[in-house]
Amino acid sequence: MTAPVQIIGSYVSPYVRKVLVCLDLKGIAYKIDPIIPFMGDDRFAQVSPLRRIPVFQDSRVTLTDSSVICQYLEDSQPEPAFYPRDIVDRARARWLEEFADTRMGDVFIWRLFNQVVINPRVWGEKTDAAILEQTLEHDLPDVLNHLETQLPAAGFLFGEISIADVSIACFFRNASFARYTVDAGRWPRTAGFVERVLALPSFERLKRFEDKMIRTPIPKHREVLAELGAPLLEETYGTTTPRRGVMRS
Amino acid sequence: MTAPVQIIGSYVSPYVRKVLVCLDLKGIAYKIDPIIPFMGDDRFAQVSPLRRIPVFQDSRVTLTDSSVICQYLEDSQPEPAFYPRDIVDRARARWLEEFADTRMGDVFIWRLFNQVVINPRVWGEKTDAAILEQTLEHDLPDVLNHLETQLPAAGFLFGEISIADVSIACFFRNASFARYTVDAGRWPRTAGFVERVLALPSFERLKRFEDKMIRTPIPKHREVLAELGAPLLEETYGTTTPRRGVMRS
Repeated sequence: MTAPVQIIGSYVSPYVRKVLVCLDLKGIAYKIDPIIPFMGDDRFAQVSPLRRIPVFQDSRVTLTDSSVICQYLEDSQPEPAFYPRDIVDRARARWLEEFADTRMGDVFIWRLFNQVVINPRVWGEKTDAAILEQTLEHDLPDVLNHLETQLPAAGFLFGEISIADVSIACFFRNASFARYTVDAGRWPRTAGFVERVLALPSFERLKRFEDKMIRTPIPKHREVLAELGAPLLEETYGTTTPRRGVMRS
Repeated sequence: MTAPVQIIGSYVSPYVRKVLVCLDLKGIAYKIDPIIPFMGDDRFAQVSPLRRIPVFQDSRVTLTDSSVICQYLEDSQPEPAFYPRDIVDRARARWLEEFADTRMGDVFIWRLFNQVVINPRVWGEKTDAAILEQTLEHDLPDVLNHLETQLPAAGFLFGEISIADVSIACFFRNASFARYTVDAGRWPRTAGFVERVLALPSFERLKRFEDKMIRTPIPKHREVLAELGAPLLEETYGTTTPRRGVMRS
């Protein structure tokens, strides 16, 4: 890295979490403007045309999309490696990341987390019981059935921790914010894997910020994070009025 | 590459097209099973859990997701390069690919192409005039306004042709299948760029297959492609009954 790294985006987002874990694993310091994307101002729209978080900035480039950011971090600072060395394993890891970011994103974020957390707290809307039931009874089990065939009984997917493990585990933090935990009787590999990955120090260091944000009204986020000693960026791209718009990984 | 490459997926898909152009630029031969994803059988669901096309197979790995496939091709056979050498340019190219695959995918495929081509021909449903109008009047202009600020007045985005140029241009082929062309008075850079990229031999070699498929009933696709001398895979993962399901890039 050639300059201080800045991240725009809330600790609550799984895509922000992926990038923060990658930065931590590589030992790269950063400052963060922890906004939720619905609350981005016009400058935010300029740096993130699709109003996505996280946004990454260093002295050379501004990037959105967590996958593009992590690959750039790997290209810029290859050690410690965050992608498998073997070409075939690397492709499989990228596919598992894509599976997590799109399919798990749809189910864990746009259905479960959206219904249980975002709708009531950001928009003041009631949880849609039919969507929630479909998610809990069908969509989440479908994803977990698939993961159960992919995940290892011990250790990580490709030996060392990689983008694949981190991408998948990030969504289970948001599941827990919506009070969903994996049934270890039904999906033992997945339950064990998630526990192992989320116990890594790079995840652990974020938990007190995340847990507090889930219990804090949005307008108070910065103030409370400052009290907790989060590495806040001084300027903010946030506003006080939620705004609907395009926003994905 | 260590073995003959097999591609599953229709010539009509922008994501299949991206991979076929990449293979052509790298001089890698392939066989193709040109199914549309709605017509994939149970074996297709096994190789592509999200029922996406293209599926890529060689002796070492089976992959879905066009971005993962192209990056694997680059890792396996780095020359000629399909990604910029400079780390910052490479990150920007990956972001433009992501913008194309998700935002242009939404607008060009899931709204425009879906309404004009897929709904009537695959499902026997009428075009939704309100969605089509919103797409033509607002969504497509929004995308083109953004592209107009990103694309070069001459040549390609990063000197040599790269993943970014190809990813963007692929969607304009599908726009033309839906009889939409860029207004060169309003978006001159975009119109010129699209014309330059689509004139490359790697795109030109696919056009007779694509143009014919757009005019051929789906059950006749294989037969007509065989007559045209397409490099067909002998086996097929296709069935004759369309089936709705998850399917993205």
